[in-house]
Amino acid sequence: MAWIEAHGHGGDMLTAASVFGLEGRAFLDFSANINPLGPPPRVMELLRDQLSAIVHYPDPSQRLLKEKLAEKLHISSEHLVIGNGAAECMALILLALQPKKVGIVNPCFSEYAQLATAFGAQVVSCEGRWERHYQPDLPDLFQLLSEADLVFIGHPNNPTGVVYTKEELTRIAEQAAKTNTYLVVDEAFLDFLPRSEQVTLLPNLNMYRHVILVRSMTKFYAIPGLRLGYAIAHPELIGQMKGKQVTWSVNQLALVAGEACLEEHGYEEKTIGLVREQREYLKQQLEELGLFVFPGQANFLLVRLQNGRTAADVQWDMGRRGVLIRSCAMYPGLTVDDFRIAVRTKEENDQLLHVLKEIL
Amino acid sequence: MAWIEAHGHGGDMLTAASVFGLEGRAFLDFSANINPLGPPPRVMELLRDQLSAIVHYPDPSQRLLKEKLAEKLHISSEHLVIGNGAAECMALILLALQPKKVGIVNPCFSEYAQLATAFGAQVVSCEGRWERHYQPDLPDLFQLLSEADLVFIGHPNNPTGVVYTKEELTRIAEQAAKTNTYLVVDEAFLDFLPRSEQVTLLPNLNMYRHVILVRSMTKFYAIPGLRLGYAIAHPELIGQMKGKQVTWSVNQLALVAGEACLEEHGYEEKTIGLVREQREYLKQQLEELGLFVFPGQANFLLVRLQNGRTAADVQWDMGRRGVLIRSCAMYPGLTVDDFRIAVRTKEENDQLLHVLKEIL
Repeated sequence: MAWIEAHGHGGDMLTAASVFGLEGRAFLDFSANINPLGPPPRVMELLRDQLSAIVHYPDPSQRLLKEKLAEKLHISSEHLVIGNGAAECMALILLALQPKKVGIVNPCFSEYAQLATAFGAQVVSCEGRWERHYQPDLPDLFQLLSEADLVFIGHPNNPTGVVYTKEELTRIAEQAAKTNTYLVVDEAFLDFLPRSEQVTLLPNLNMYRHVILVRSMTKFYAIPGLRLGYAIAHPELIGQMKGKQVTWSVNQLALVAGEACLEEHGYEEKTIGLVREQREYLKQQLEELGLFVFPGQANFLLVRLQNGRTAADVQWDMGRRGVLIRSCAMYPGLTVDDFRIAVRTKEENDQLLHVLKEIL
Repeated sequence: MAWIEAHGHGGDMLTAASVFGLEGRAFLDFSANINPLGPPPRVMELLRDQLSAIVHYPDPSQRLLKEKLAEKLHISSEHLVIGNGAAECMALILLALQPKKVGIVNPCFSEYAQLATAFGAQVVSCEGRWERHYQPDLPDLFQLLSEADLVFIGHPNNPTGVVYTKEELTRIAEQAAKTNTYLVVDEAFLDFLPRSEQVTLLPNLNMYRHVILVRSMTKFYAIPGLRLGYAIAHPELIGQMKGKQVTWSVNQLALVAGEACLEEHGYEEKTIGLVREQREYLKQQLEELGLFVFPGQANFLLVRLQNGRTAADVQWDMGRRGVLIRSCAMYPGLTVDDFRIAVRTKEENDQLLHVLKEIL
């Protein structure tokens, strides 16, 4: 594990600051996949105005946010549990369903295996195929479904950014029904895709009592410090998850921000447009530098070095220049040549490209 | 369960607002035991200044806060786990130690039994003795220790506010060692006592590998909306608890506030003085109204009506006048005549007394 991923994740500004001897805020952070626009300005204003609300306990049932979210998603609020980040939702799923075997498709978000192990499950895995940009062949995934009690898939997958087609996703869900396996679809980055490309089982969820969707509001609305996520599933599963949730787990400012974020339609469109445009720009520029870029659809790109330098090396040289990237050697299935970068604004992306050019 | 405790706790402004048709902020809230001074002004300023820090993930190891807290408590930071509120710390204890039987002394904070049940333990209990203001006789508590794998005690106990002597507390800890029982001492309200009266096992913790202290920063620093608590125990137990904690569980603003709160020495002294003075004042005034007041030592008082009106009745009449109190009928061992009020400022206490006089 590379040193600035000491805690297994990107975005660790405190470690970066101590390693590179710069102030945390001085970094240009491509290591965490956060909306480059920053939080919606109106949400920041509202938080500033409502800061005194921290003197009261948060609503333990998150009623207002849940109602707004249900309306936006066209579901009833009993299909929703709000979490202290998407990570808490994943933990609640495992605590509620107590799977003995949890299946993952490598490479993927490290929390799936970490949480499963923490809560006493055995982790079984299959590997994505290089030719499919690390998506698995469906027969491999079906085999995993038959072995595990619960399978996590990332959609888009982190760190590859790749997605399934609706047809594939439906086949996976139906196979999971046959093998009596819970299917958890981690849609933490789905909001960043153009709406027409947001492939999700959400409209079919009434048919699938074994499917749980997990989403994050942290990344899209650039509020990771506040922690906010949610899960969507059959009310019976939601009830089981809530039964494991610690009272007041979602803090008051996360609720305030969450309610306000849902009204930021202009910001949403702007984000989606920016990400699509800048991802293509970054990809093209990186390819011109002789790097291999995976065809990810999310707000980040997985990149493979091809000139003999390791990602850890490049990460070090860039970190010293104040630019953080995510080394990916720790992901099972990936190599020391792989790193991940967030898609940011044109200006920031140009800074990254400039520094990268200097180094390579 | 009375209706404004629909979620089992006081301080639920949203329910109160919908029941009484007033805005949440319009209430004078005696139903939650929060420092009446409100958050330290410098902490609020700092939060306002550092609001933009929510664009970064919180430090998953809470390093800065942990170091400051360890220094203040004269312990090493490996004896500490920081939680998303004291409630998360309790959940982590249960998840880490997986007790089959959890012991509680009624009446007590409802989360002990609720969390124990949620995480699959059987709850066993003994009752405090009326003559001892609901503290248990030590033989009854020793019997509970011999039955349970883990016992929670509140110190001061919520909702009674009563405490053990250092000698009693030491005897309880030593008996727990003999019976191989984990002892969790919930010190959420201990900071409100004069320092000379803060009876705690903290200085002896090196001798007790089976004792865990849980504390809250939420109540004393009046930041319940942010969620912040911690537990102190042997590093091995702390390690087990951290093994169950969801990554980034403590949000960034809670960390910022927590670090700043620890430097508020003047605020601490002022709070302790105010609470002691106003608790005695309130007690005396309530007794003059013909009510029985338990000799609690914390920042709240348990009160028994003696004129035939129920606490729910009185709560309703007061709620309509904008003053919230906590009905205590739901606490096993207590009666429909019991309610709990926080100790607040002289002016607020006088408002409460005025409304109460009108009603009685």
